[in-house]
Amino acid sequence: MGEVTQLSRRGMFGVAGGGAAAGLAGFAGGWGASQASANPAPDASARTYPFFGAHQSGIVTPAQDRLYFAAFDVTASTRDDLETLLRAWSSAAERMMRGLPASDEVTSYDAPPADTGEADGLGAAGLTITFGFGPTLFRTSEGKDRFGLAKKQPKELRELPHFPADKLDPHRSGGDLCVQACADDPQIAVHAIRNLTRIAFGLAALRWAQLGFGRTSSTSTAQATPRNLFGFKDGTANIKAESQDVVDEHVWVAKGDDAAADWMAGGSYLVARRITMHLETWDRTSLREQETLIGRDRVEGAPLSGGKEFDEPRFDVTGRENKPLIAKNSHVFLAHPKNNKGVQMLRRGYNFTDGNDALGRLDAGLFFLAYVRRPSTQYIPMQMRMSREDALMEYLQHTGSGLFAIPPGARDGSYVGQTLLEG
Amino acid sequence: MGEVTQLSRRGMFGVAGGGAAAGLAGFAGGWGASQASANPAPDASARTYPFFGAHQSGIVTPAQDRLYFAAFDVTASTRDDLETLLRAWSSAAERMMRGLPASDEVTSYDAPPADTGEADGLGAAGLTITFGFGPTLFRTSEGKDRFGLAKKQPKELRELPHFPADKLDPHRSGGDLCVQACADDPQIAVHAIRNLTRIAFGLAALRWAQLGFGRTSSTSTAQATPRNLFGFKDGTANIKAESQDVVDEHVWVAKGDDAAADWMAGGSYLVARRITMHLETWDRTSLREQETLIGRDRVEGAPLSGGKEFDEPRFDVTGRENKPLIAKNSHVFLAHPKNNKGVQMLRRGYNFTDGNDALGRLDAGLFFLAYVRRPSTQYIPMQMRMSREDALMEYLQHTGSGLFAIPPGARDGSYVGQTLLEG
Repeated sequence: MGEVTQLSRRGMFGVAGGGAAAGLAGFAGGWGASQASANPAPDASARTYPFFGAHQSGIVTPAQDRLYFAAFDVTASTRDDLETLLRAWSSAAERMMRGLPASDEVTSYDAPPADTGEADGLGAAGLTITFGFGPTLFRTSEGKDRFGLAKKQPKELRELPHFPADKLDPHRSGGDLCVQACADDPQIAVHAIRNLTRIAFGLAALRWAQLGFGRTSSTSTAQATPRNLFGFKDGTANIKAESQDVVDEHVWVAKGDDAAADWMAGGSYLVARRITMHLETWDRTSLREQETLIGRDRVEGAPLSGGKEFDEPRFDVTGRENKPLIAKNSHVFLAHPKNNKGVQMLRRGYNFTDGNDALGRLDAGLFFLAYVRRPSTQYIPMQMRMSREDALMEYLQHTGSGLFAIPPGARDGSYVGQTLLEG
Repeated sequence: MGEVTQLSRRGMFGVAGGGAAAGLAGFAGGWGASQASANPAPDASARTYPFFGAHQSGIVTPAQDRLYFAAFDVTASTRDDLETLLRAWSSAAERMMRGLPASDEVTSYDAPPADTGEADGLGAAGLTITFGFGPTLFRTSEGKDRFGLAKKQPKELRELPHFPADKLDPHRSGGDLCVQACADDPQIAVHAIRNLTRIAFGLAALRWAQLGFGRTSSTSTAQATPRNLFGFKDGTANIKAESQDVVDEHVWVAKGDDAAADWMAGGSYLVARRITMHLETWDRTSLREQETLIGRDRVEGAPLSGGKEFDEPRFDVTGRENKPLIAKNSHVFLAHPKNNKGVQMLRRGYNFTDGNDALGRLDAGLFFLAYVRRPSTQYIPMQMRMSREDALMEYLQHTGSGLFAIPPGARDGSYVGQTLLEG
């Protein structure tokens, strides 16, 4: 029977000889160009970000509302197969970020559809797909050089150390590859990971995944500061994309940062931590105690030293009994650049909830995602100190973890990872 | 230190004597009235539905985009305690559906905040909260009359029978009470369930919960038909709220339906089924096979007998070799009212994904929710037949289940469940 041609996700199949009449609208870079649509997408769902560029999208991109994060284990054994996978992933990601089906393959009625279809008619919804490489892609835990890439392993890409109070689930940690899919519609993010998983069949297998439902950081000055599940504004002091010099200093790897890994120039490192929040305990804590632990007030997110949300916290201001208004074991104190040799992170985390445990306690928290130029100075020392001194740790438990090298963006016609495999 | 008065979730705390200045704007039925907002909510996030009325909201309400469904076990042992819980839940639900904090309690700095806070500034986002009663609220599995309600147990409210191919997880099934929270923002739905769980502390404990991320049915003619994770439009033939006579006939319990349970008049029954979809297998099936299994084409959702999406399927139309164009073991055939003695259901399901299994297969599918007047004729026979004959069952597995009596709505000043406890 007839072949099926796909042009756009809106009216995806043109059926030749089939029973159903489907429009074959031309597609020219946006949903607006489609005339055959039965369900016109509202503007927000039509938003697209570019796949090609100096940096990957999904880092300084204004944080979208929803996340689907996935880590994969490579099952292929040759470097050619790895390249095949990365090329196929880039091609599919580039298409999906434009709101197109994952593949431009001509589909026959007698073959499985090239795209799984649940995103048909939904638009790109601001989808970004960001790829990364875990330490185990370079060397197995036994030290084996799997793909002849060991000499290119960045010195910053080592397993994170054990932090006090870590209780990591190996089924929610690690991975040779990671994919961060962010969009303003969760169905779009899920569709992206599902189709990339499908494309990886025989080359890589899904290791773990995390759905996030509410961004917990702003990455643009145009975004209001959202709240985490403790009810507090989160990410007030986050790096914003508009501060180009700060981004350059703290987020992007520069040429010369690591002589063995110049392929990382223009990339970044992603620290992923699944942080379970003990909400039931928190909810029984007084407002005063909560604000003391955080170092900000709950309503406005203003530092307890006074002023408004975006005013700098003043750690020298004292109150009764000469105690500092912002406690030295508060989250704000311990996380502030002033108390961390000036380092900053670009945080891009999401709230999550994964049901409940047998006692009826919500399995919920913050899926922490931070992009940094040097994990060894920007994340590890701070987290080591926080896990020891942060009074908030009583209400937190790190239950998943991953560190990934995020390569630079791909040039048009190339693929993410090309600088590593061919550089 | 000073007391804290809350008026609205926007600028929630008025701090007396505190360090932060918080506006105390009057609240008069919608976010538009708040002048103190730092982050004005877009219109969609300000949408509200009424809590009080003849029927509970969240049934014929146009299906919102996100779901958080929770089942609870009552731990209280007296009828008074049960009433206390239901009154408190209604009060909190009514407030949250208006975009207010769960409680109007005056909060002191030395007490835990009355509301957990993560919805501050977000608006009601079309939140509906719908309460239901499981069979075990009336009689334990050993037959014990727990609250003196056994004589009022509706004859329609019995444990669902075992259907062939069921593989139910007891940790995702049953419950004395259920709460369906739907909203266009998942953070609002999660906030609602979390605060109701908190209010229930000591009276009822969360048994299981399910997050849904994309509605799979339209309940209004104004809504486009969404797609399920098989990539097909789902719910084309669903009951729409605009068809008042169909809703009255198939959804709402009428006085006289059940002499022992007249308290259910104006209510409905909710069938909840967690249906795992074997997506990896489905994704390897040809488009022809997929469309044959469904009985509709994938692009438009038109019946294979011809026409467009909303045209009636014609089961007598045959093609080559005199075979019917819509197979007799297709989903559309087996689900159609014509082949089910005219019965219909109001479906209100959601797609879900809960991570992946150890083999990297997505744990995903459809959380089926259907409201019916009589489960014994509207759901059980159809599901019994489908689980035996529906060719699609090869790709499905029912992994969770619950049946709940959904009482009528509450009158202003009363609470949901009053007709049961005091009728």
